[in-house]
Amino acid sequence: MVHTPVRSLPLVDLGYSTALLTDQYELTMLQAALRSGTAGRRAAFEVFARRLPTGRRYGVVAGVGRLLEALGEFRFGERELRFLTSRGIVDEPTAAWLADYRFSGDIWGYPEGECYFPGSPIMVVEATFGEAVLLETLVLSVLNHDSAIASAASRMVNAAGGRPMIEMGSRRTHEAAAIAAARAAYLAGFANTSNLAAGLRYGVPTAGTSAHAFTLLHDSERHAFKAQLTALGKGTTLLVDTYDVERAVRTAVELAGPSLGAVRIDSGDLAAMARRVRALLDSLDAHDTRIVVTGDLDEYGIAALAAAPADAYGVGTSLVTGSGAPTASLVYKLVARADSEDPRAPMRPVAKRSVGKPSRGGRKSAVRRLDGHGVACAEVVSTGPPIDRASSGPRDRPLLVPLVKGGVVVGGEPLEAARERHAAAVRELPATALQLSAGDPAIPTEFVNGGPSAAMP
Amino acid sequence: MVHTPVRSLPLVDLGYSTALLTDQYELTMLQAALRSGTAGRRAAFEVFARRLPTGRRYGVVAGVGRLLEALGEFRFGERELRFLTSRGIVDEPTAAWLADYRFSGDIWGYPEGECYFPGSPIMVVEATFGEAVLLETLVLSVLNHDSAIASAASRMVNAAGGRPMIEMGSRRTHEAAAIAAARAAYLAGFANTSNLAAGLRYGVPTAGTSAHAFTLLHDSERHAFKAQLTALGKGTTLLVDTYDVERAVRTAVELAGPSLGAVRIDSGDLAAMARRVRALLDSLDAHDTRIVVTGDLDEYGIAALAAAPADAYGVGTSLVTGSGAPTASLVYKLVARADSEDPRAPMRPVAKRSVGKPSRGGRKSAVRRLDGHGVACAEVVSTGPPIDRASSGPRDRPLLVPLVKGGVVVGGEPLEAARERHAAAVRELPATALQLSAGDPAIPTEFVNGGPSAAMP
Repeated sequence: MVHTPVRSLPLVDLGYSTALLTDQYELTMLQAALRSGTAGRRAAFEVFARRLPTGRRYGVVAGVGRLLEALGEFRFGERELRFLTSRGIVDEPTAAWLADYRFSGDIWGYPEGECYFPGSPIMVVEATFGEAVLLETLVLSVLNHDSAIASAASRMVNAAGGRPMIEMGSRRTHEAAAIAAARAAYLAGFANTSNLAAGLRYGVPTAGTSAHAFTLLHDSERHAFKAQLTALGKGTTLLVDTYDVERAVRTAVELAGPSLGAVRIDSGDLAAMARRVRALLDSLDAHDTRIVVTGDLDEYGIAALAAAPADAYGVGTSLVTGSGAPTASLVYKLVARADSEDPRAPMRPVAKRSVGKPSRGGRKSAVRRLDGHGVACAEVVSTGPPIDRASSGPRDRPLLVPLVKGGVVVGGEPLEAARERHAAAVRELPATALQLSAGDPAIPTEFVNGGPSAAMP
Repeated sequence: MVHTPVRSLPLVDLGYSTALLTDQYELTMLQAALRSGTAGRRAAFEVFARRLPTGRRYGVVAGVGRLLEALGEFRFGERELRFLTSRGIVDEPTAAWLADYRFSGDIWGYPEGECYFPGSPIMVVEATFGEAVLLETLVLSVLNHDSAIASAASRMVNAAGGRPMIEMGSRRTHEAAAIAAARAAYLAGFANTSNLAAGLRYGVPTAGTSAHAFTLLHDSERHAFKAQLTALGKGTTLLVDTYDVERAVRTAVELAGPSLGAVRIDSGDLAAMARRVRALLDSLDAHDTRIVVTGDLDEYGIAALAAAPADAYGVGTSLVTGSGAPTASLVYKLVARADSEDPRAPMRPVAKRSVGKPSRGGRKSAVRRLDGHGVACAEVVSTGPPIDRASSGPRDRPLLVPLVKGGVVVGGEPLEAARERHAAAVRELPATALQLSAGDPAIPTEFVNGGPSAAMP
């Protein structure tokens, strides 16, 4: 467990302030609350999804580690304050308040890689209203993006049934989002990524050999293959669909011998091509040469290749766009607040009544309820005190962990820990969770109203 | 026109290297090409879309300005090189080549804000293969993201028919993508954004007043409205759907008087609510108080509000996710290269033959052909010499402009210029371009094969 003070030692030095990754209304609300004497009221904001993307069986919490890093750089420096005051966005007293801003509150959350369901209290931010309201946009941007990618990635990993997955979607999304997408895919079970920045920044294993341009650059495919084998060795992956796949495979094995690492097919009917190429490789005694297939794959395309002799899948566009659900639709809602700025004043539940946008007031805790076989059977969300494990079944797994305590990051962890947690969380779900077909959430969310707002772990 | 050397003076100091926003295979291709003596061959890569997103009538080129900034920071420093060599991704000779890397070639492109169609040669990068291949991922990430957002934004602006649009989707996309999305929306005609970083970084006008949390923080809606009016003045926008809309509107006008700036409705049947609220405001003599509607709007929802008394629209999720098309599907393909490293060797067209992924070899130029009324009627793409304007019709508007010459940025421009260009480009399209219904591209793309590869402007 890494204990890092938010104010001085972010997990990674981002090199820039994250304070303006923020919607303007957070600052105008702060200014108005400072004036009305309410900015200091204790408040609890909750991050949750009203629903999963249509047909999805579960969601995956991702971005927690990135958020903890970004929180460390959430400061209003001279440049930010000059912008805000010169544009008339905040007045001088508000700017002075912002200059001293450091988040000093508490954050609990589902740890990264955990699964979630509609209404799961994925994160709870408790601080004064002023301190907590400023984090809304940053919290949601990071969690919405990364959770959307991880949720799609997890389905793809399940569909692949153990065959390794390569993330290669950087070119289809914003250049910085690409790094986060590679990270999210890895924690959801992808084997590696094409994105070098994700390798440098997060230690995600990287992969990649060549594109069609490399073959076209050379005077012939044979020249190109020779050049690649010379530079990268026989273990490399040769791309065989620039001209004629069969001829390319023959050339590849002729040049590399049966120890050729792999061939890649990027177009056409991937299942049929994989079968033809496997037969051809075998006929050339290249039994150990693997077949990597890429080209507009999503979880359905991957599942359709289950019977094909593909050894690894590369996924791009559908991964970085969340396979139809590019955002997780998480919201950040005030669920409780004190009646005065007295730090000892108790918090009371609050909720808006907007049509079609239900939210439940009150600070919450949650457990995943397991049946006698260790299989998840319900997400139990309590607005009361923590559920008594003895009274509520022997296998209630608490879901919220401390992430920040009094402004100090206490929830930092290596990315590998999130990856392992995710694999375990999926194994625990009922088998229906792994169906790709549209359906209801794999387990129901049960809300238990248990009196006053719950104490957090 | 800003002339900025790429090597020393980026338009904006990004503060970090963009060189690892790159797929690994670009570096392994470079290494193999350096070994095989082909890395120095002159090469032309082209950015184009094989098709528009299903049903779309036109696309919008965006991200050019951001790309020119990022290009200035595309250097392999000590940290990047140490990563690449320690991981065994490149060998020492390749690392030495990378240490000296500065893009020294030429880039032409459709200027930012221009419309594009299937096969439009949106960008042409000409340099040695080694120099040009490294830029693939960065070029595509920036252009694919920003063009997808701008293309969706343009449809929304058209649907709004002159009513101002507020971009407020930051929380639904990656925190850095949010800044680029706000910029892209602005160039496509949005009035402003909630994103403060886009205000600081790109000068996009910003907006925003308050959320439901602000009302819930206070002891009553009346207290909240009073606090906001005190802090932000009567010209502010009060959010009226936290509890009961009618009561909130009455309270708002009672407190602010008829000079109340605006009220915002964020839920329910927006058209019906807008009519009820307009009638109520008018009955209270608040004739000048505007109505802002927000809440899961996309271009279809906006169009459906045409007859409703809404004065401005706020759009979030659908904007930042490209309204169903979160990536523009642009590709970066080698279309011509020399047969040797001799810098005077002529380039010859090349193209792969992969099934279902057609590409046309040869460096290209393009014009938008206008009819006698100045209305666009075709996108004419030539693989020959530039089309003779006299011989091809009096109203051929050339589309490619120089962006980088010999490594020096020559295509920098203020964001406002792109915004004005986009408005003009849309006005020039036939009326069918503005239909929201699914259909074919508004104008056909005509390919003219005119002999040897064309000289660029």
